[in-house]
Amino acid sequence: MNVAAEAPAAGPGRIRATYLLRTAGDADKVAAIVAGEQSSGTFLPVPGESEALKQRSAARVERLAPVEDGGLPPLPGASPGALASYEMELSWPFANLGASLPNLLAALAGNLYELRDVAGLKLLDFAVPAEFYAAYPGPAFGVAGTRRLAGVAEGPLIGTIVKPSVGLDPAETAAVVDQLCEGGIDFVKDDELQADGPGCPFDERVKRVLDVVRRHEARTGRTVMVAFNLTGEIDEMLRRHDLVAELGGSCVMVSLNGVGPAGVTALRRHARLPIHAHRNGWGYLGRSVDNGFSYVAWQKIWRLAGVDHMHVNGIANKFWEPDDSVVASARACLTPMTKSHRNVVMPVFSSGQTVMQAEPTLARLDSSDFIFCAGGGIVAHPRGIAAGVRSLRQAFDAASAGIPLGEAAKRSPELAEAVEKFS
Amino acid sequence: MNVAAEAPAAGPGRIRATYLLRTAGDADKVAAIVAGEQSSGTFLPVPGESEALKQRSAARVERLAPVEDGGLPPLPGASPGALASYEMELSWPFANLGASLPNLLAALAGNLYELRDVAGLKLLDFAVPAEFYAAYPGPAFGVAGTRRLAGVAEGPLIGTIVKPSVGLDPAETAAVVDQLCEGGIDFVKDDELQADGPGCPFDERVKRVLDVVRRHEARTGRTVMVAFNLTGEIDEMLRRHDLVAELGGSCVMVSLNGVGPAGVTALRRHARLPIHAHRNGWGYLGRSVDNGFSYVAWQKIWRLAGVDHMHVNGIANKFWEPDDSVVASARACLTPMTKSHRNVVMPVFSSGQTVMQAEPTLARLDSSDFIFCAGGGIVAHPRGIAAGVRSLRQAFDAASAGIPLGEAAKRSPELAEAVEKFS
Repeated sequence: MNVAAEAPAAGPGRIRATYLLRTAGDADKVAAIVAGEQSSGTFLPVPGESEALKQRSAARVERLAPVEDGGLPPLPGASPGALASYEMELSWPFANLGASLPNLLAALAGNLYELRDVAGLKLLDFAVPAEFYAAYPGPAFGVAGTRRLAGVAEGPLIGTIVKPSVGLDPAETAAVVDQLCEGGIDFVKDDELQADGPGCPFDERVKRVLDVVRRHEARTGRTVMVAFNLTGEIDEMLRRHDLVAELGGSCVMVSLNGVGPAGVTALRRHARLPIHAHRNGWGYLGRSVDNGFSYVAWQKIWRLAGVDHMHVNGIANKFWEPDDSVVASARACLTPMTKSHRNVVMPVFSSGQTVMQAEPTLARLDSSDFIFCAGGGIVAHPRGIAAGVRSLRQAFDAASAGIPLGEAAKRSPELAEAVEKFS
Repeated sequence: MNVAAEAPAAGPGRIRATYLLRTAGDADKVAAIVAGEQSSGTFLPVPGESEALKQRSAARVERLAPVEDGGLPPLPGASPGALASYEMELSWPFANLGASLPNLLAALAGNLYELRDVAGLKLLDFAVPAEFYAAYPGPAFGVAGTRRLAGVAEGPLIGTIVKPSVGLDPAETAAVVDQLCEGGIDFVKDDELQADGPGCPFDERVKRVLDVVRRHEARTGRTVMVAFNLTGEIDEMLRRHDLVAELGGSCVMVSLNGVGPAGVTALRRHARLPIHAHRNGWGYLGRSVDNGFSYVAWQKIWRLAGVDHMHVNGIANKFWEPDDSVVASARACLTPMTKSHRNVVMPVFSSGQTVMQAEPTLARLDSSDFIFCAGGGIVAHPRGIAAGVRSLRQAFDAASAGIPLGEAAKRSPELAEAVEKFS
């Protein structure tokens, strides 16, 4: 699950990053090559690469410690030989790049993945100096702001994804949301496949869904938080955000990889609503053992950019990821980036989630500052959507009170049916 | 090198994508699961998922053909069993997402990489219907526009990267560019590590470098094309672009992965100069055999977004990539996306390039519509930068005329020294 044994310390003046490095070469030399490639060196000594220039601009190898090697074959094109694994910490002078996330990525996660001497490389963690926190304000809402807007003072936010993911028109979507609100849901999100397709245009969907939300608000005094997927081009996203805000909505959602860091930062700087960040595509960035990013490193990029909620998969999910890795990701989201710049975001559990995961999620996270999204786990309830929502809330209430699920199910036919269906 | 045996045809109304799929499961069932996950299905049948909805919204498996399996271990968390490989083509209704690149990525390259039944997945190629070409104008300059601005009517553009990559201040950078112009270079680019760091601020660098370029322009009548790395946040990039344009510059450069699709599209829509696209980070997207993207698929995203030059690594490069893969990438850039929307971009060769790669690059690409960037291969020339440039041009002139490098070197001490140094 790729967690660094030793996290890099944020120090004055330098940017630090920790990697899992696999190589068949002399590790000290390879680490120096990586540091050179990512700063003032190239494959040949060049004139102008003076000692003074290196002194002010070269990346440094701060630490290189052998770790157990996973025994996988090397990445293609790697220099041959017996492979070993290392935890490698590099540092860069701040003056090389300044407080810029897009340029931070070029330094931390640029050409180095392509070096021949690199048979495997994963960015495990990083730390940036104070200038970055001055330039990037981080999440505007985080846990406290989300709780305030959703009207949920304590406990997890019980949420769902509109299902079917795609194919409902705006009126059909609003009808589903109506039943969810009827059942007492806290949070609803669009599927990441549903943004502004001709089959379900964004504006019309937002209008119809927020009509429903406001009707229930008048009844309950609480505004169900709906994360509308505004993923698109910059101008589209800003306009869509404004529409949601004007119509009294309280959240927007964005696909991080489809938009990219500069687009997400632009959205953050414009937004006056919480940003729900979807990680679709994370598999190609993080699933390989020996290539890409650990989630611990990757989520920091978006917390700096200033999103408020981050997807972390779920316990016993329908995807590949083991529970330990999911829990580590969720904890990372709740771990302050620095003492003075916490940038804590709300982890979002999803993927095949049902009443069965309520207790283990609460127990393993050791916090209730999270959003728990069940899609099929609500909509596929035998008695319908509202019953699906109620069963999920009952499961969390029971878990919070220390009542075993089986016991709680005896008192609620809705919960009993959910347990039978999803266990 | 991950090239699809059969490229998806752009058809009316549907989006198509081809993948390399590895699985231990029943391939037909797994392909159907992938198609479901990426459209109207989820892990459970849900109410509302009617036949009519599936008919209008479900992704379809268009083709599934066994291909030779590479024998690698599965990605972590994959369902156990004997693995086999397939080329899988899926299609989506246009109405699901509309003409939106960020949302196209959520459909084509989203959650599917995380399915348990997926033991390996690589996006090999894709095709989009005409609506995308109406929404995304593609490259504004491409080959012809670049040649016009650089004043190079035929043959490759001889280029370089300012070296050392980072650490020179604006005046030192301008001094290097002065020598490059003196030597007759066509194209100069910033390193991807050099954008707007406090050690070499963008504005000051642009002013000083363009002073030099204009001085040589007055002498030669030709404007050396300098790709200034404006990578940053959206507002920064647009402002920097305008500065370059106002000062008479003719190109800007952007790091694709650090900025992301929405940011690059915003830059394209604002820009009146060619956009030189740097692929740093490509290793974590494309180096794994069984995860991520093939370059053939990935470069199409950016051609739709509208960049003009795409990095493709180089023959006999310092990185991991074999020559066949490099050549396939460069050819992909020069292959029209459709008959009516060619969107051809100029491939950029770089990475450990010297006089030694001039002839093989021309020969293998079977075109001279490319930019050839040598960094150390110019700057580390024993007689200095200007001699480095001249030796490289001599190498290309000889190759174009069919004269062997050794023969040509006999007539030029500069070329002879370069051959001796770099062979």
